[in-house]
Amino acid sequence: MNFLEKLKIASRENRSLLCVGLDPDPKLMPANISVFEFNKVIIDATSDLVCAYKPNFAFYEALGNEGLDALRQTVKHIPDNIPVIGDAKRGDIGNTAKAYAKAIFDGFGFDATTVNPYLGFDSIEPFIQYREKGIFILCRTSNAGGTDFQALRCLEHEQRSLFEIVALKASDWNVHGNIGLVVGATYPEELKLIRQDHPDLPLLIPGIGAQGGDLALTVRYGVDAQGERAIINSSRQIIYASRERDFAEAARQAASELREQINTCLLTKG
Amino acid sequence: MNFLEKLKIASRENRSLLCVGLDPDPKLMPANISVFEFNKVIIDATSDLVCAYKPNFAFYEALGNEGLDALRQTVKHIPDNIPVIGDAKRGDIGNTAKAYAKAIFDGFGFDATTVNPYLGFDSIEPFIQYREKGIFILCRTSNAGGTDFQALRCLEHEQRSLFEIVALKASDWNVHGNIGLVVGATYPEELKLIRQDHPDLPLLIPGIGAQGGDLALTVRYGVDAQGERAIINSSRQIIYASRERDFAEAARQAASELREQINTCLLTKG
Repeated sequence: MNFLEKLKIASRENRSLLCVGLDPDPKLMPANISVFEFNKVIIDATSDLVCAYKPNFAFYEALGNEGLDALRQTVKHIPDNIPVIGDAKRGDIGNTAKAYAKAIFDGFGFDATTVNPYLGFDSIEPFIQYREKGIFILCRTSNAGGTDFQALRCLEHEQRSLFEIVALKASDWNVHGNIGLVVGATYPEELKLIRQDHPDLPLLIPGIGAQGGDLALTVRYGVDAQGERAIINSSRQIIYASRERDFAEAARQAASELREQINTCLLTKG
Repeated sequence: MNFLEKLKIASRENRSLLCVGLDPDPKLMPANISVFEFNKVIIDATSDLVCAYKPNFAFYEALGNEGLDALRQTVKHIPDNIPVIGDAKRGDIGNTAKAYAKAIFDGFGFDATTVNPYLGFDSIEPFIQYREKGIFILCRTSNAGGTDFQALRCLEHEQRSLFEIVALKASDWNVHGNIGLVVGATYPEELKLIRQDHPDLPLLIPGIGAQGGDLALTVRYGVDAQGERAIINSSRQIIYASRERDFAEAARQAASELREQINTCLLTKG
């Protein structure tokens, strides 16, 4: 089953557009628990509430081989019906990109990954060749610095902004139907623009919660005509809902509330 | 000692602007040798001929934890007087970028790294905070796809191309004097432009050899007024000079010849 089908089924079964970001930081985690054990507890407490999980490689790499072992265990532990997005944001020239794609898809077994567009088509093509996997190209990122380059307007494309041109190219490259875009919730007008121009592309949307993105606008502008194909990510708000012994219940509670808020926004949207 | 000082000393001691890319690919390596053993032999055969080494993370990640162990051993094995650039091309939002910087500098002990500018200042800032380390921002990459976005001309900056704007921003951000740029040898006119606008920035220049960049133009346009601050990378041409039992001598021979060609170009440049 390809990524998009798996996402659709998980999203419908769990009535959820919520993706939980598994970004373990020992400074924020409860004491005396390993990274894998932490993730395992969070997953067991939330897997009927989410449409996907998204571990970010950085937090595992920062812990060396032990961290990467925990990442592998985490991917294996996630129930088969829930897609897992490896947030790696890789971007390198052709033969190197191929090695990264191999590491992420064959090595770790992720269902999808994020990639950086700065190096252009041949840096993304080796990922796209994995037809059953999802490839989310960074478009308009949720951080403040996202504006530095992504918002520049370009002469060659009727003064469109760089992030819009990235989206147009992504759409051109989508011959296998496995490309999506990363668009931050912190820029709702840009999210609206991208969804209007690309009604069918799946959007991975970080930036609600700790980063301050507006949930109602995110849902209104981010979903497709069927109220789907939006993956709304929250990390810290869920996994660090409590540092105490009740962290599993707290994470479940936070995930459940956020899922319901999203679903309420969907109903209001009509 | 900071990265730039270390680079200058190594470059002068070895009379070399040559950086050897340590990109091990078991399909291209001699048979029956481990990745670390392969790198060790290459390093031992070339360390008096280079100004730096540059392992690319992708090739190690593709081999799982064993690959990353080999990378750690490789960094440790490189003589202390030769700077090591971890080619990682990472780019992520603030707190995540911090985790990547920790992994690369504290974990692996690299002297420098490459970063992707697409996410803007806050994705690069945690790296810059390591003042003694070198930060090479991708500017004009050597691959064909590099043109897709990097060559777009932007309204906000007098129709300059995106890669020029990245270079200008990099220069603005260079408050600790530890920033450099990645500019491919395959686009000599762009290299010339960047060097003219940024006479003091160190340039990491991939793309000669297998990728087809012109060596004479690379040297002429890439070096600073003192004939320094250019790091000319070659990977495949050196490390895969032979697949037979003579691969160490072949690598040494190839590195020696390339160093001399570079030095001849420097003399011709005057």
